[in-house]
Amino acid sequence: MEQELTERQNRIVPGGRAMILAYDHGLEHGPRDFIANPLSSNLEYILDIAGRGGFTGIVLHAGLAEKYQSQIQSSGVPLILKLNGTSELYTEGDPYSPQLYSVEDALALGAAAVGYTAYSGSKYEAQMHREFAKIIREAHNKGLPVIGWMYPRGKSLFNEKSSSKTLKIAQEEQRKTGLAIDEAPSVVAYGARIGMELGADVVKIKYTGSQESFRRVVHSAFPTRVVMSGGPATNTDEEFLYRVRDILVAGAAGVAVGRNVWQRSDPLIICQQLHHIIFGD
Amino acid sequence: MEQELTERQNRIVPGGRAMILAYDHGLEHGPRDFIANPLSSNLEYILDIAGRGGFTGIVLHAGLAEKYQSQIQSSGVPLILKLNGTSELYTEGDPYSPQLYSVEDALALGAAAVGYTAYSGSKYEAQMHREFAKIIREAHNKGLPVIGWMYPRGKSLFNEKSSSKTLKIAQEEQRKTGLAIDEAPSVVAYGARIGMELGADVVKIKYTGSQESFRRVVHSAFPTRVVMSGGPATNTDEEFLYRVRDILVAGAAGVAVGRNVWQRSDPLIICQQLHHIIFGD
Amino acid sequence: MEQELTERQNRIVPGGRAMILAYDHGLEHGPRDFIANPLSSNLEYILDIAGRGGFTGIVLHAGLAEKYQSQIQSSGVPLILKLNGTSELYTEGDPYSPQLYSVEDALALGAAAVGYTAYSGSKYEAQMHREFAKIIREAHNKGLPVIGWMYPRGKSLFNEKSSSKTLKIAQEEQRKTGLAIDEAPSVVAYGARIGMELGADVVKIKYTGSQESFRRVVHSAFPTRVVMSGGPATNTDEEFLYRVRDILVAGAAGVAVGRNVWQRSDPLIICQQLHHIIFGD
Amino acid sequence: MEQELTERQNRIVPGGRAMILAYDHGLEHGPRDFIANPLSSNLEYILDIAGRGGFTGIVLHAGLAEKYQSQIQSSGVPLILKLNGTSELYTEGDPYSPQLYSVEDALALGAAAVGYTAYSGSKYEAQMHREFAKIIREAHNKGLPVIGWMYPRGKSLFNEKSSSKTLKIAQEEQRKTGLAIDEAPSVVAYGARIGMELGADVVKIKYTGSQESFRRVVHSAFPTRVVMSGGPATNTDEEFLYRVRDILVAGAAGVAVGRNVWQRSDPLIICQQLHHIIFGD
Amino acid sequence: MEQELTERQNRIVPGGRAMILAYDHGLEHGPRDFIANPLSSNLEYILDIAGRGGFTGIVLHAGLAEKYQSQIQSSGVPLILKLNGTSELYTEGDPYSPQLYSVEDALALGAAAVGYTAYSGSKYEAQMHREFAKIIREAHNKGLPVIGWMYPRGKSLFNEKSSSKTLKIAQEEQRKTGLAIDEAPSVVAYGARIGMELGADVVKIKYTGSQESFRRVVHSAFPTRVVMSGGPATNTDEEFLYRVRDILVAGAAGVAVGRNVWQRSDPLIICQQLHHIIFGD
Repeated sequence: MEQELTERQNRIVPGGRAMILAYDHGLEHGPRDFIANPLSSNLEYILDIAGRGGFTGIVLHAGLAEKYQSQIQSSGVPLILKLNGTSELYTEGDPYSPQLYSVEDALALGAAAVGYTAYSGSKYEAQMHREFAKIIREAHNKGLPVIGWMYPRGKSLFNEKSSSKTLKIAQEEQRKTGLAIDEAPSVVAYGARIGMELGADVVKIKYTGSQESFRRVVHSAFPTRVVMSGGPATNTDEEFLYRVRDILVAGAAGVAVGRNVWQRSDPLIICQQLHHIIFGD
Repeated sequence: MEQELTERQNRIVPGGRAMILAYDHGLEHGPRDFIANPLSSNLEYILDIAGRGGFTGIVLHAGLAEKYQSQIQSSGVPLILKLNGTSELYTEGDPYSPQLYSVEDALALGAAAVGYTAYSGSKYEAQMHREFAKIIREAHNKGLPVIGWMYPRGKSLFNEKSSSKTLKIAQEEQRKTGLAIDEAPSVVAYGARIGMELGADVVKIKYTGSQESFRRVVHSAFPTRVVMSGGPATNTDEEFLYRVRDILVAGAAGVAVGRNVWQRSDPLIICQQLHHIIFGD
Repeated sequence: MEQELTERQNRIVPGGRAMILAYDHGLEHGPRDFIANPLSSNLEYILDIAGRGGFTGIVLHAGLAEKYQSQIQSSGVPLILKLNGTSELYTEGDPYSPQLYSVEDALALGAAAVGYTAYSGSKYEAQMHREFAKIIREAHNKGLPVIGWMYPRGKSLFNEKSSSKTLKIAQEEQRKTGLAIDEAPSVVAYGARIGMELGADVVKIKYTGSQESFRRVVHSAFPTRVVMSGGPATNTDEEFLYRVRDILVAGAAGVAVGRNVWQRSDPLIICQQLHHIIFGD
Repeated sequence: MEQELTERQNRIVPGGRAMILAYDHGLEHGPRDFIANPLSSNLEYILDIAGRGGFTGIVLHAGLAEKYQSQIQSSGVPLILKLNGTSELYTEGDPYSPQLYSVEDALALGAAAVGYTAYSGSKYEAQMHREFAKIIREAHNKGLPVIGWMYPRGKSLFNEKSSSKTLKIAQEEQRKTGLAIDEAPSVVAYGARIGMELGADVVKIKYTGSQESFRRVVHSAFPTRVVMSGGPATNTDEEFLYRVRDILVAGAAGVAVGRNVWQRSDPLIICQQLHHIIFGD
Repeated sequence: MEQELTERQNRIVPGGRAMILAYDHGLEHGPRDFIANPLSSNLEYILDIAGRGGFTGIVLHAGLAEKYQSQIQSSGVPLILKLNGTSELYTEGDPYSPQLYSVEDALALGAAAVGYTAYSGSKYEAQMHREFAKIIREAHNKGLPVIGWMYPRGKSLFNEKSSSKTLKIAQEEQRKTGLAIDEAPSVVAYGARIGMELGADVVKIKYTGSQESFRRVVHSAFPTRVVMSGGPATNTDEEFLYRVRDILVAGAAGVAVGRNVWQRSDPLIICQQLHHIIFGD
C-alpha cells in the first residue's frame, strides 16, 4: 500500500507543490456562495475550471463525486473526497463536523485522497480527533493520503482565564496584530502540528498575517506539507496572489482555494496566475 | 448494482416525472389524520387509490410494508420504505427522527427505494446527516435509490443573531414574503442542496411560495430531482393543482402527496387531475 | 421463517384470542407486588396458575425463563420473553426502559414470542422506537412474533402548549372524561398505531374508559391485534370482567393480566371466568 | 456449557454454601484500605489467607488475576473476576461503575465466575442493567456463573416525593429502624430480586438489620443464592460473626467478605470461625 | 504471546530499570514547548538524543511514528506508541483524553509498547478506565506491554465535602506539605494502584515530594513498575537528578522525561548523568 500512497501523494502534491480546488461549499455554506457567479452552482462548470486551470485536486462531497464520477475521471483532476462536513443552518454551541463517508466509500468513488476538518479547541475536539486519527490509520493502510482542514475553533479560544499557555500567547499575538484568535500564529501552528502528530500528509490552514509567522507554522508541521486556505474572495486578484507568494516563500506547498477562483467572473485568469506562482511555469 | 439502481429510479421517476403517495402519517401524526376520511386508516383503501391513481411510488413504514407485502406487490405500485420517523407525542427541544430500519430491511421487504427525513438546522443535524449519508452509500451499493425529505427545522433557524449568512438572507425573505422561515427560498434551497451533496437521488421539499423562487431551488439541487411535499389538505383542489403546475414549470419532477389525496371524500378525482398535469395524459 | 412465525402467533393468539399472564413485576415494581399474596413471589406457583388457567402465554424476564426452563416447557404455556424492563427505584426525568436481552437470547431460552415496552412521548422515544423497530425486524426474520407494550408516557404529554394536535385533542378528551392523559383515547390509539406501524403483531394497551373509544383504538391498530393491559387489581372480579367483555366486543383479542390474577387469594376463580369470556367455553 | 456452569457453581457455592474473599478494594477505595494491615497490599499475603482460610472464591480485578495467574491456580481458590469497578476519586452525581473486562477475558484468565456491581436506582441504572444482563447471557452461554453486587444507590432513593411505592415503604422502614435507606429491607430485597430477574446465580447484598427482614430478602431472590456483603470492619469478631449466623438462619448461602478478614492483625482466626459457622465443621 | 510480552518488557525496562524519552508534547502542549530549543521541534534531533542518550524507549504519536518509521528502527530505541492524547486548546470542564489509535495500529507501526493517560477522578474516569482496561487486555493478548500515565485530575479532587476518604486524607497531606492535590501521596498512590489493578506493566506518575512518600506509592503499585514523570524543566540539572536518585532509592524503575532533556541547550549532558544514576554505569 505504501507504493500506492506515494503515487497518490505525487498526484496531489507533484514536486512538492499543490494547487487544490475546494468545492464543498454547497454543504458548508449553501447556495448563497453561488450567487456571485450562478454558473458556479454546477459541477460541470467547476470541473472545467479545475481541468483547464491545472489544479492538482478537487474537493467534493460524495453526492457530486458519485453523480459526476465519469466526468471527474475524464478531467484527469484527482478527486479529494471530503469525509466530513456541516451546514451553517445550525450554529449554536461549539462546532462539530460529523464524518459522513468512510475511507471505503472514498476508494469506491475513485478518490486519490480524503479530507477531514478538525475543530481543535472545540468542545467536540476529542470526538473529532478520534474520528480523524482513525481515518488516517485506515486511509494509509489502504494507500490513500489524507488532508486535514486544521481549524482550531470554539468558545474555549476566547476564554481569557484559560489555563492554556498557548492561548495566553495567542491572545497576546492577537492584541499586537489585530488578527482574529483563530488566525493567531500560535493557534494556527498548533492546529498544523496536531494534523502532523495525528498523521496527516497535508494540512490546510489559515493565513497568519505575515510571511515570518507562516514560516514558523510550516516549521511546526514539518514534515507534513502545508497549504493555505483560500478564504473569502478578496477585492483584487493581486491581494490574493500576494499572499500566495508569501506563504510559498515561507515554505508552504501551495493553496486550497475555492471562492477566490469560482466566484470571479473569469476564473481562468487567476488560475493561470496561481499556477505560474506555484509551479513557476 | 448500477443497472438495478437505474431500473429502480426509472420506476419511481419514469421519464423524469414522479407522483408519489405518502402514507407515513400513522407514525408522524397518528390516527387524527384519518378522522377526515375514516377509510384512510386502512392500507387496502390507500393501496387501491395508489394503484388506480397511477402513482409511481407509495411511502410506508415497515409494519404496513410487511403485513401487506403481497397486496403491495400485486398493486404494481413501487414501495418506498421510509427508514426513519418520529411521533408528534414528543415535541420538546429540537427535532430528531431516528433511523428505524436498515437498507437490508428495505430490500427484504421488496422496496424499490428508501426515504429518510433530515432536519438540517436542528441540534441533531450532525447525527441525522451522518445516518442519512451512510444510508445513501449503502443503498446505492445495493442498487436502491434514495429520497430525502429535506426539511430544515429547529430553534437555530429563528435565531436573529445567528452568524449564518443563509439565515440572514432567509429572515429577510421572510419579512418580504410572509412565508414561514422553513419555507423561505434560501432555506428550502439549502436543504435541497444538502440532499444532493450527500447523494440523494430525489429530494422532497416544501413549496416556496412562487414559481420563480422554486426554480432557484430546483437549480440548487441539480442534478438531483425535486418533488414538492403535498402538505396539509388545501381548501380546494384547484389551489393545490395550481401549485403543482407551478413547480413543474419551475423544473420539478413532481409531487409526493398524502393528505391532499386521501383526506378528500373522493380521492380519485384529484388523482386523475394530478396525473394529467404531471404526465400530460 | 414465515411458517414458524405463523405457528408461534397461533400459539399466543389461538383463533384470534389471547389470554396472557404477565409476570415481569419483580423487575418493574419489585417484591412489594407479592405482599398481597406471598405465594406469588415464586414462579412455580405462577406457572401452575398459567397452566391450569389456560393462559396462551406467560411474560417473564430472562432470569426466571432460564432457571425454570424445563418447568415452563412442561407446563405447555408459551414463553413470552420480555426484552426490556426498568425498576421503579429510579423515577426522575422521563421514562426509559433499556433492552436487556436479544432476540437470539429469546430463541435460546425457548421463547414463542418477545415483548418490548415503548414509552412513546418520552424524551427517550427515539431510542426506544429504534430499539423496538430493530427487534421486530430481527424477530420476524427469525420467526418470532413481537408484542408491544405501547404506553405513551412522559412530561411532554402534560405540556398544555404543545404543538402536537394529538395532544390538544387528548387534553380535551381528558377534560371531558376525567381519564388520565395516558388513558385518553387519542393517546392510546396513537400508541397502538405506532406499534402497528413499526411492525408489532400484538399491542398491549390501557383501557380507554368505554367500549366505543376502545373500538376506535382497535380500528387504528388494524391489522395488529390488541390486548388490554390488566393494570392494578380491581376491588371486585366483576369490575374487571366487565371491562374485558367491553374490549372484546370492541374488537380486542383479549387481555394481558398479572396482578388481577395472582394478587387474589384464589386466582383460579377469575381465570375460569376470563377464559370463559375470552374463548367462549 | 450447562455442565460446566454447574461444575463451576459447585466450586463457588459447594453444598449451597459460600465463603468468598473480596479483594477489589485497591480499585474501589485505593491504598487507604491497606493502612490498617500493610501486608494486605500484597496479593501473595491475601492468597495465603484465601487458601488457608478455606474460601470458596477470591474476587480480583484483571491486573492481579493476570500477574498472579499461576499462584492463584496453585492456591486452588476459584477466581471470581470482577468485571466492573470504579474509584472513589470521582464521587459527584449518581454512581456508575463501568464494565472493564469481558466474559472472554475472564475465561482467558482462568476465572470460575464473574462479578458485576449494579447500582439500581442510580441515574445510570439503565446502562448498568443492560451491561449486566448482557454479561449474564454471555457468561451462561460460556459456562460461567455470575455474581451480582446488588447495591441500590443514588439520589433517587432519597426523593421523598418519589412516585415509587417501594421507596415510600422503604422510607417508612427507615424511620422505624434507623437504617440507611440502602439497607432498608424493601430496597435490599428489590435489589436482590433484580439480580434474580436478570439471571444472576448469586447476589451479594447488604445486611438489613435483622434476621426476619433478611429472610424476606432471601425469599424475594429465590432461587438465586444470597451472600451478605462483609462491609467495613466491625469492632469485634463476635459482632460480625453474629450477623453471619443470622443471615444463614435466614436462608443465605454465606458471605463475601474483605476488610473484616484482611484488615485484622491475624486474619486466620476469624476465617476459622467463619468457616465453622458456614460449613459446620 | 507471553514470550513476546516478556521480551518487549525487557527492552523497555531492561534489568528492571527504565529511562524513557517522552515526546508527545506536540499534541499535548503544542509548538510552544519547542521555543526554548527550536531544534526540538524536529524528530530527527530528538531521535539522535534518544539513541546517543541510551534511552530505553521513545514516546510518540502515530504521525511521527509512521513518518520516521525507518529512522526509529535504525536508532534501536524501542517505540512506545501513545494511544491517546489531547490538546490544551480545549480546557473547559473535566479532562478527557480520547483513544486515537488501536493496539493493532501500534503493532503495524512497530511499537514495542503502548501508552495511555488515565485521568482517574475526572468526570470521564469511567470512559477512560474502560478504554484503558480494554487496551491492556488486547495489548497483552498480542504480546505488547502497556504503560499507564496515571494522573488523577478533575474538579472532584478539590471538593472539600467529598465523601471520598482518600480525598480527605489527601487534603490533609496537602495542608501539611503544600503540594498540589494531584501530587499528594495518597492521590498519586491511588492512581498508581489503579494502573496495577487494571493490568498496566508500568505506571508513570508524578513525584510526591519525598523519598518516603514515594516509597509508599511504589509499594501500592507492586508488582507493576513505577517511573517518575519528568515534568516541567527544572532550574538546574542537579535539582532534577536529585529527585531521580530519590525515587530510585524508593524502589522506582526510572523516569519518563521530556522537557527536562530536550529543552536544555545540550541535552546529552543530562542524559549521561541520568543514565549513570539509573543504570549505574
